Amino acid sequence: MMLAQATAAVAQNIYDDKSFFDAYSQLKRSVEGLDGAPEWPSIQALLPALNGRRVLDLGCGFGWFCRWAREHGARSVFGVDLSEKMLARAKDNTRDDAITYERADLENYAPPTAAFDLVYSSLALHYVENLAALFHRAFAALIPGGRMVFSVEHPIFTAPTNPGWSEDSGGNIIWPIDRYLDEGPRITNWLAPGVIKQHRMIGTYLRLLLASGLCILHLEEWAPSLEQIAAHPDWANERERPPFLIVACDRPDR
Amino acid sequence: MMLAQATAAVAQNIYDDKSFFDAYSQLKRSVEGLDGAPEWPSIQALLPALNGRRVLDLGCGFGWFCRWAREHGARSVFGVDLSEKMLARAKDNTRDDAITYERADLENYAPPTAAFDLVYSSLALHYVENLAALFHRAFAALIPGGRMVFSVEHPIFTAPTNPGWSEDSGGNIIWPIDRYLDEGPRITNWLAPGVIKQHRMIGTYLRLLLASGLCILHLEEWAPSLEQIAAHPDWANERERPPFLIVACDRPDR
Repeated sequence: MMLAQATAAVAQNIYDDKSFFDAYSQLKRSVEGLDGAPEWPSIQALLPALNGRRVLDLGCGFGWFCRWAREHGARSVFGVDLSEKMLARAKDNTRDDAITYERADLENYAPPTAAFDLVYSSLALHYVENLAALFHRAFAALIPGGRMVFSVEHPIFTAPTNPGWSEDSGGNIIWPIDRYLDEGPRITNWLAPGVIKQHRMIGTYLRLLLASGLCILHLEEWAPSLEQIAAHPDWANERERPPFLIVACDRPDR
Repeated sequence: MMLAQATAAVAQNIYDDKSFFDAYSQLKRSVEGLDGAPEWPSIQALLPALNGRRVLDLGCGFGWFCRWAREHGARSVFGVDLSEKMLARAKDNTRDDAITYERADLENYAPPTAAFDLVYSSLALHYVENLAALFHRAFAALIPGGRMVFSVEHPIFTAPTNPGWSEDSGGNIIWPIDRYLDEGPRITNWLAPGVIKQHRMIGTYLRLLLASGLCILHLEEWAPSLEQIAAHPDWANERERPPFLIVACDRPDR
């Protein structure tokens, strides 16, 4: 089993790159936590009541969600991340005996089986190369009736060779799409040069979820609401194309 | 009931516009039928065995699928379309007592309930304004365990203000996205000026399907395969962004 796992891909650990980490630490969502992430209300709406529940956070970062889950009654929370720097910060931020942090690579991390009511992941799974295997392990980690809720970068966001706003000949702001069907790694210069993310289509996310046995509850192509844009006019372009995809699915309880 | 239906939207009947109809009649898929539609193999793979089954085709056009379903053992087939011209051609093409054609507007057509094993629709539902109501009626038309399979234009295809290929500053072929979150009518000049289609997001298709009680089986962001492009090199751009969305869902059998 360990040998088989050893052949799996090893993830890039960009979050432990000093310049990346320093830049990431300045983001609104890093400083303010969940309330600094404009998609958080949409994610929160998909979560089950956490009272007495066991929660797994795949790619827990600074531990903001782990802390929130405990504050909302979760019995225990496991936070997993590849980045030593992030886990160190998480441990500082959230001293709580019911939160366990573990350093692991999502490419091969095998959580305990039938041990969680909720598997959560925020903007981490687009770094994972073997997502089919991860979804199978997430399914196995859930109890029957358990839920998985995750966000990733939307494939419209990840697909392009040259992501970035442009103008068409009529002066409309546009986002250029190419290579949408060409799934696989994309190297971008987000916060640091050479960040590798995996572009995959919505259809592929759904196919892999269904193949793992999970049942689709909700899929949202998230962008800021009109109300959010009224409060942050500089976000207006985000409604031209969705930055994130948010998915909720259940392990059937039979 | 009829009064309530009379308040519903009335669909544009562009297929009975002479110049549109003449142009549409020249398309490869109009001349060659299902084998002239490159997405047909992907749709066919999602169909149940039709032997002895009852089939409803929403937007049946020239009746190519109705005929195919009968040739593959369907017991009876209902083809529904708004276009008189298309239905006249369909009746000419497929003389078969087990195929019934009916002229109706999908905005308010109410098929018989629990009467069909398969509801099929090819590239018609993006003309429908009240899709929530149509999905509810499709659910009701299916027997428990029955299936719906449909294709529509992909939202990446329908969203833009100015749909059409362009080049970025590096010379890459790109498809411009804007207004993706802005769901509603889009007026295009496809085959004739002023054709109205409804842009809606993948997330919205899924939300409406789930709200009707249907269970998602498969979602495919379709583009020609590499093999198809090898045979038709002029289709290569289609893999830069998917033209169609193909969905299969089931009415649960309990």
